Amino acid sequence: MKKQYLLTPGPTPIPPQVALKEALPIIHHRTAEFSAIFADVCEGLKYIFQTKNDVFMMASSGTGAMESSVVNLLSAGESALVASCGNFGERWTKLLEAYGVKTTVISVEWGKVVSPEAIAAALKADPSIKVVYTTFTETSTGVTNDIAAIGKVVDATSAVLVVDAISGLGGEKLLTDEWHVDVVVSGSQKGLMLAPGLAFVSVSAKAWKYVEAAKLPRFYWDWRKMKKSLATQETPFTPAITLIISLQEAIRMIREKGIENVWKDCSVLAKAARAGMQALGLELFGDNPCEVVTSARVPAGVEGGKIVKLLREEYGISIAGGQGALKGKIIRFAHMGYIGKADLLVGFACLEMVLAKLGHKVTKGAGVAAAEEILLQN
Amino acid sequence: MKKQYLLTPGPTPIPPQVALKEALPIIHHRTAEFSAIFADVCEGLKYIFQTKNDVFMMASSGTGAMESSVVNLLSAGESALVASCGNFGERWTKLLEAYGVKTTVISVEWGKVVSPEAIAAALKADPSIKVVYTTFTETSTGVTNDIAAIGKVVDATSAVLVVDAISGLGGEKLLTDEWHVDVVVSGSQKGLMLAPGLAFVSVSAKAWKYVEAAKLPRFYWDWRKMKKSLATQETPFTPAITLIISLQEAIRMIREKGIENVWKDCSVLAKAARAGMQALGLELFGDNPCEVVTSARVPAGVEGGKIVKLLREEYGISIAGGQGALKGKIIRFAHMGYIGKADLLVGFACLEMVLAKLGHKVTKGAGVAAAEEILLQN
Repeated sequence: MKKQYLLTPGPTPIPPQVALKEALPIIHHRTAEFSAIFADVCEGLKYIFQTKNDVFMMASSGTGAMESSVVNLLSAGESALVASCGNFGERWTKLLEAYGVKTTVISVEWGKVVSPEAIAAALKADPSIKVVYTTFTETSTGVTNDIAAIGKVVDATSAVLVVDAISGLGGEKLLTDEWHVDVVVSGSQKGLMLAPGLAFVSVSAKAWKYVEAAKLPRFYWDWRKMKKSLATQETPFTPAITLIISLQEAIRMIREKGIENVWKDCSVLAKAARAGMQALGLELFGDNPCEVVTSARVPAGVEGGKIVKLLREEYGISIAGGQGALKGKIIRFAHMGYIGKADLLVGFACLEMVLAKLGHKVTKGAGVAAAEEILLQN
Repeated sequence: MKKQYLLTPGPTPIPPQVALKEALPIIHHRTAEFSAIFADVCEGLKYIFQTKNDVFMMASSGTGAMESSVVNLLSAGESALVASCGNFGERWTKLLEAYGVKTTVISVEWGKVVSPEAIAAALKADPSIKVVYTTFTETSTGVTNDIAAIGKVVDATSAVLVVDAISGLGGEKLLTDEWHVDVVVSGSQKGLMLAPGLAFVSVSAKAWKYVEAAKLPRFYWDWRKMKKSLATQETPFTPAITLIISLQEAIRMIREKGIENVWKDCSVLAKAARAGMQALGLELFGDNPCEVVTSARVPAGVEGGKIVKLLREEYGISIAGGQGALKGKIIRFAHMGYIGKADLLVGFACLEMVLAKLGHKVTKGAGVAAAEEILLQN
């Protein structure tokens, strides 16, 4: 009976009209009917990615698409650069090391953003670096990296730029082509408002030359098979049919709203969330807060894990706590996809009650009021 | 408006009560609620696999689980044996070659079955072979290999046996532990009556020693991460939440019916399908026909592709044609999972009409009558 509110940065809530598509009688994937859906979804993804490049789909978690961006671009013993500012940045390093790639890591303290200048200096110092891996919105800390600036740096070299936009795509403004991002990686369960199980990559012409030269072993993740499938509309392996059919509906909804309006709403919600946190006396976490999730430090004397637990148990509100070294130290409120203004206000109202229960001094209604103020202004 | 009947060997029809679970409001995967579902599903899979071994789940097509059975068991330059009798057997060879494994292939003509004696001889001739890869029901041709006999052969050596049971598991009798199958690979969209997007492997203690020694690169497919997740009930990456929740319902249905009854029904449907084909003057294809799909040769003077096309266009019946060299030469009728007696009879009735339209001489009702005879006897 308990009503649930999902305010987590993945999975995010699925609109009922999208979810119900998952439940329709399944169709076979080697049919004209499915081929038409597949082609429509591939075109729609280009719009959301803001790219003319091909976008490939695979049945996997987002990490699978990250792995595909390693095995399709490099050979063992070649060099790559990772610019990391959190848990998901570190995942690039682990992946590259698993494949025997020589990896230079520029790592900043969690909560800070990566420096385009540091990337430029690293590329200058080591011209053998072939691929630069970084993160768009680093969900673990809640910051956004300046991908436009990093794109400019990498574009001026022979290296290609791979950006993990799993949590940011379809939420925060990302201009794949204009910003010169060779490979954008994403997943289904964030801004795309879908269940988890689909992952995506867009691949530039510059990157494609690397694909042809790469010698790392690959089969399921092989982009060459996926490129062929775009021409024939026959996927190399049985695709995640129900998820792709529900994706078509999610893309239709995003197109109807307009991607610029999606970005704008996300941005307004982020401003409201930040104002709400500060009105409750919570310090915002991170240098350049992103627009898909808001992180705030857990106030002194309160256990972070208890905030998350009580919100869920008492009010059915799911938010995220910190990961790794930030466990118990921050809370993270998502506001992307199908999370709307009313959901955010519900979240803040319940957060106020939970903080009060845990002994943190709050003025009841203050967080909600501050958020309302921002929503009314925009 | 056209009513659809799916008689293809994957995807197979999804029971509405399973499909609707996919459409429920999504829950977060780092919760006690999801952990309980995950644990229940892992236990249920052991029942369907008939094993005490761990069963791991991954978000991918079945091929992903096949790839995981290469990268977790071998190092580059080590030796493997593939016993192949069709398209999916050949996939093992392609996978192993992609990873630089020395691969010996025992290949028989499509339609024939692999020989346990030939496997025994190959293992004797080359004791460096570490892993034997083969197929349970080879969907591309419709035959079943004698896994019990192959298991006995491999069990007597230090090699481990990996069986692709993607299309057979949950349909035809498969006794993982009793038959000494070290690794059984499967997928969600066949006997398990689910949408595609989940894949599974069961791993024996004998195979686990290989996992620890294997040096092929792996990250997403790493069974060591999956084993850890069974202990903590925290999946390494965001799992395909909606598919796993619908799998819980499918497993509940299979448990309620009893796996022995699932096998029995599948076997009866197979007998009925074979009788129906023969009554229509179609020659059965393959040496040891499997129980999840029935293959028959397209009669002389008829285009195989037209049978498939007309069935779909005129009557909404989806069946499969031949793959590779068998394209246009065979038709394949699936009868597993949620395909029941009535569906089979509908399929035969419409097949009779289509064959008549295409100029093949049939006694109308003869295929249906022959199938009914078998169904009444059982």
